[in-house]
Order: sequence, then C-alpha cells, then structure tokens
Amino acid sequence: MFARQKLYEGKAKIVYATDDPDVFLTHFKNDATAFNAQKRGQIAGKGEINAAISGHLFQLLEANSIPTHFIDRPTAEDMRVKAVKIIPLEVVVRNIAAGSLCQQTGLELGAVLKQPLVEFYYKNDALGDPLLTRDRLLLLELATPEQLDQLQQMALRINELLSAFFQQCGITLVDFKLEFGLDRNQQILLADEISPDTCRLWDQGETDPDRRVMDKDRFRRDLGDVEGAYQRVLERVLNQPVQPLVQEPVQE
Amino acid sequence: MFARQKLYEGKAKIVYATDDPDVFLTHFKNDATAFNAQKRGQIAGKGEINAAISGHLFQLLEANSIPTHFIDRPTAEDMRVKAVKIIPLEVVVRNIAAGSLCQQTGLELGAVLKQPLVEFYYKNDALGDPLLTRDRLLLLELATPEQLDQLQQMALRINELLSAFFQQCGITLVDFKLEFGLDRNQQILLADEISPDTCRLWDQGETDPDRRVMDKDRFRRDLGDVEGAYQRVLERVLNQPVQPLVQEPVQE
Repeated sequence: MFARQKLYEGKAKIVYATDDPDVFLTHFKNDATAFNAQKRGQIAGKGEINAAISGHLFQLLEANSIPTHFIDRPTAEDMRVKAVKIIPLEVVVRNIAAGSLCQQTGLELGAVLKQPLVEFYYKNDALGDPLLTRDRLLLLELATPEQLDQLQQMALRINELLSAFFQQCGITLVDFKLEFGLDRNQQILLADEISPDTCRLWDQGETDPDRRVMDKDRFRRDLGDVEGAYQRVLERVLNQPVQPLVQEPVQE
Repeated sequence: MFARQKLYEGKAKIVYATDDPDVFLTHFKNDATAFNAQKRGQIAGKGEINAAISGHLFQLLEANSIPTHFIDRPTAEDMRVKAVKIIPLEVVVRNIAAGSLCQQTGLELGAVLKQPLVEFYYKNDALGDPLLTRDRLLLLELATPEQLDQLQQMALRINELLSAFFQQCGITLVDFKLEFGLDRNQQILLADEISPDTCRLWDQGETDPDRRVMDKDRFRRDLGDVEGAYQRVLERVLNQPVQPLVQEPVQE
C-alpha cells in the first residue's frame, strides 16, 4: 500500500489517499504552530512522537469500545487510518481551567472544574476557530442534534478513559481537543490525533506551574525543553525508556 | 422623591438610590460608547430619546404580562424603576444575522435565521463581554438552570412582542440586548433599557444596507445622522412627530 494523492495538508499532518478508497495515510510533521498559525516553528522528533502516542491511545480507546479511525503505523511518522470526512468541529474536554477558558471567563488557571466541560469550536481558521453555542452549531448545520449528543457522550467517555490512563502515567490530563469524522456509513469515528499538541498534560511530580507543563504550551509560551517534554510523555505513555526516538517501523 | 446616592455609573446611564429603598432613579446620558468603550462620543438628545422609547416599550411589555422594572418618568431623561440586582448577563435575541454573529460564524449580514437565537454574554467589561455557552454560564454560577430557562422564555416572548410592535412602525427588529434583575423577592424583572443603543433596527422603507440603519450602528460605523435616526425611531414608536425633542417632564 503506497500513499498517492495528497488530500489535505494541515498544520501538523498531511493526509494522503491510498490505493484503498477506505484507507488514508496520515503523515505526522515536525512543524509546530500556535495562535492560529501566527507562531510557527519545528519540534524535533515531534512527528514520530505524536504518531506513537496517538497510536497507543487510539488502541487503548478502541479496546474500550470507542470507534477510532486508527488502523496501524506502517512507519514511525505515518499512520494508516480509516477514510472519514472530518466534522468541522474541535471538541474540547476540560477538567481543569486553562488557556482560553481562563481568558474568557476569569476562572483561575488550575481551577478544578466540578464536572468535565465539553465545548465545541468551529474548525475554521479564517474565523479563528470560534467557540460555538449549541444553537450556533445547529444553526450552522455543522452536526445534527443526534450527532451532537453522540459527540458529547463519546467525548465524556474518552475523557474518563484517558484521564485514568494518564493518571497511571503520573500525568494530569488538564484538557484536550478531539476531532471526529464520518465514515461512508455515517458512523462517527474518533479521528485526528491525541498528543502533546492537542492535550494539556501536567507532570504530577512537579508543582511549579511552568515546570509541570509537558505539552505544546511549552512551545506557545517559550518555556524551553519542548522536545524533552514530548519525549517524556512518550516514555510514560509507553511505560518504557525511549532512547533514541522510535526509529523502527511499527507493524501492527 | 429625590435622587440621593449614586449607586452605579455605566456607559449610558447613572443609577441613583432614592428615599424609597425599593425604587431607583435611572438617568439616561447622551454619552455613547462602542467596542467595549474604545470608541466614545455624544449623541445629542439621546438621553431623553432613549428614556422615552424605553418607557414606551416597557409599558407595552408590562401590558403583555412581562414584568419590568419600569415605574414612570419623572423628567424627560430620568426613569423611576424598581430596585433590582442586575444579573450579570447580556441576553441577546437575534432574528437576522448581524454584528458579532456574522464575524464569528461567517453567516452573511442580513441572513434571516430560521428561528430566533437567544444568546447569553457575560456582562464583564474586563473580559470583553464574552459569549457564554450554557455550561460556562452555569459553571460561573451566573444564574441557576431554572433562572436560565426563565430568561430564555422571557427573551423569546419579548422578541415576539417587540418584533410585532416594530413591524407596525415599519421597522425590522434585527437583534437586541436585554438585561434582567432580581427584586428583593428574587422575581426576575426586565431591566436596563430598550432603545436604539441596545437594538439593531432597520427601516423597512430603505433597501440600502447603510441608509436603513436606525440604531447605534450609525455611531459605531460612522454612518452619520445618528441623532436624526434616533429621533425617527422615537417618532415611529410614539406614532407622532417629535419636534422638538420631548422637553416636558412626563408624569405617569
């Protein structure tokens, strides 16, 4: 199976068609962007780290009855995935206040939410990925009410599973962003990636609000040691030292 | 009854205590601001025009079983109102896409919504009055779920009444902002004002997208003839020529 036509190039990944119309190949890039691509850079090894973390977490979720687009990883930086049409929503689950939630509500960074907050943002760079109310989402016909309810339920269940997993890794899952897609049967699959690019992850062994950060906030906020933090997340997720970065193709 | 202590000075009004603890006196100013007070100016006669329009519309709503804070207008620019504690929400009802809804969703200016959209914004200048999802509103404890449902129902009913009234005036009610307060018995009353400062009003006799504007967008967007537009709204609302501006105290 070889990658063929480039279907889409995003900020962190490229999606290719393959000779199987039901399968796409996703290539994970080292490129990093923040603030709607106003800040750009590279994080060495990020492509394979994020592919490895995402692959591991997708398999964990699949084993717990969450349908995902993951098939396998033919090379370190590539993932074969089921062909889906991405729903143009960024589904954000928050356990602890951080980022735009603090800026927009005045909640303090680190405030523990009484219950997880599921939020929907319009995946639209030109508009700056704005927060959507339920009514705006339905007005724009970005999903049906039934799909929206299913996305909400899936997001909460994924949060339970990932929070418990990261807890075992000594990492607090502060918040994360999910994307979903529809396969040819209109089934909703978890898609995109789950990685330090898309999650806020705090090291439970650190109390300093900057030192604990193990995710893209290190890049956003110029905290330094971005590569090291990503690699430590991978080591904890795989529960094994990773030195050097995964170099062998993973056949599954 | 004389005004006493100044309780609150906002961008367009001053609220005073009176010798009756259940009554406030609201003074309508000529000051105009836009874009979270980054743009400032004066609109001649605005205070008495907005007090007159608001008084008329509050009475219309009261006559249709909407509880409001309105008592009477002892002078042209002043309104006696029932003492309430303002709920820190801006409740916006939209019939036609305009303003931030267009900017944040990509909907075209003038798109007729299939059904009225009720939106809640956090009345908080420091945060820039951000849009709230239902979950964020409840997380911040800005209202109880029961209050929120009541606000939604009241806003929709007010929209029905005001849309029908403005239709008779040859004016399209595009959208508008309401504020509500709680009296000492925790009853929700419509408060604040209803005026060209807080409504988007389009003259049905004009098709040009700038000429039709009869509201504060003339000030926001430097369209000129702000005073004339406000005065024409007052004339249509009162269904009588208003020349010169209401100068006699209105005793009710």
